[in-house]
Amino acid sequence: MPLLPEPLQRLITAFERLPGIGPKTASRLAFFLLKAPNTVSSELAEALKGLQLATGVCQTCFNITLVDRTQCDICADAQRDTGIICVVEDPMDVLAIERAGAFPGRYHVLHGALSPIEGIGPEDLRIHELELRVKGGLIKEVIIATNPSMEGDATALFIKKQLAPYTVRITRLARGLPVGGDLEYTDQTTILRALAGRQEME
Amino acid sequence: MPLLPEPLQRLITAFERLPGIGPKTASRLAFFLLKAPNTVSSELAEALKGLQLATGVCQTCFNITLVDRTQCDICADAQRDTGIICVVEDPMDVLAIERAGAFPGRYHVLHGALSPIEGIGPEDLRIHELELRVKGGLIKEVIIATNPSMEGDATALFIKKQLAPYTVRITRLARGLPVGGDLEYTDQTTILRALAGRQEME
Repeated sequence: MPLLPEPLQRLITAFERLPGIGPKTASRLAFFLLKAPNTVSSELAEALKGLQLATGVCQTCFNITLVDRTQCDICADAQRDTGIICVVEDPMDVLAIERAGAFPGRYHVLHGALSPIEGIGPEDLRIHELELRVKGGLIKEVIIATNPSMEGDATALFIKKQLAPYTVRITRLARGLPVGGDLEYTDQTTILRALAGRQEME
Repeated sequence: MPLLPEPLQRLITAFERLPGIGPKTASRLAFFLLKAPNTVSSELAEALKGLQLATGVCQTCFNITLVDRTQCDICADAQRDTGIICVVEDPMDVLAIERAGAFPGRYHVLHGALSPIEGIGPEDLRIHELELRVKGGLIKEVIIATNPSMEGDATALFIKKQLAPYTVRITRLARGLPVGGDLEYTDQTTILRALAGRQEME
């Protein structure tokens, strides 16, 4: 005899497939939805369906956009500098940089990073499309903002090589101590990078 | 200009309404679903709809069951002792006790606890229905297993008074040190209860 009715167990199983949600959290969410007003779960269900149907990727930078658009809001914004491209792994990274609010240029979303272990090669990422944008000739600088991880570094290195034939400045986000961080708890590699990248005080 | 396309923002908002899911987790889940196979989000959406359509409550104990059943699996199980009722706040509590696997009787799910602050009174809980079950006369013992919280204790006390006119044994789950816990980190109230409830060693 199963302990839970099938529809409830099914919802728990569906929640468990999401990242960071274990069996306990999944149960808690499912039981919460049982008690909550119907609108809470129906709106979530509708939003889930809407996500698949209504979102697509920008044909220029491959950021997430509405399905009926060929360009995202950022690429369509004539105010933004067309000469600088910031290359990121994921759409969430665009959001993080936009929230900081200091980047005037456009983006290029790779949708991942090189990872031999996971079998992700250059052809799985939007690297060729980046090369085509640079080849176009209007780009002055490509800021590589892949994650400060092994995969992110490998991807940055690969992109640098791919773009070597073009006259474009290629930069990478600075490494160092995170603002508000604590030197005492900072890992060795970060300290080494922070030392190597030390700057004159103004 | 909004930073995110509307369907994505809508899903993030829907996730944020779930307990324990803040803006960051909600974004992470939404972006995960964007990248994940369509089946992950569509199965979650279907399960959410199924929850509303396919679950109901048992007409005897008010535990969650399939919508087309009048009784849950436990109430329908002739093997289980009809003379003992374990009173719990929520369906999740039934699951917790069932997992322990040592309770031979039936349940009664109150669907909450008395809470003047949240405006939850006796009429909002299934207390009257419990009284009717006890009035029926077959019940020998009612084990009150509401949470060891202020609300749970108030609810237990209220039920005890309501059932006073009937010849039924009323018990409450033991308080004491949790198994695997550490005396050093146990709060004073628990230690006091553990002392007061101390038992002869066998």
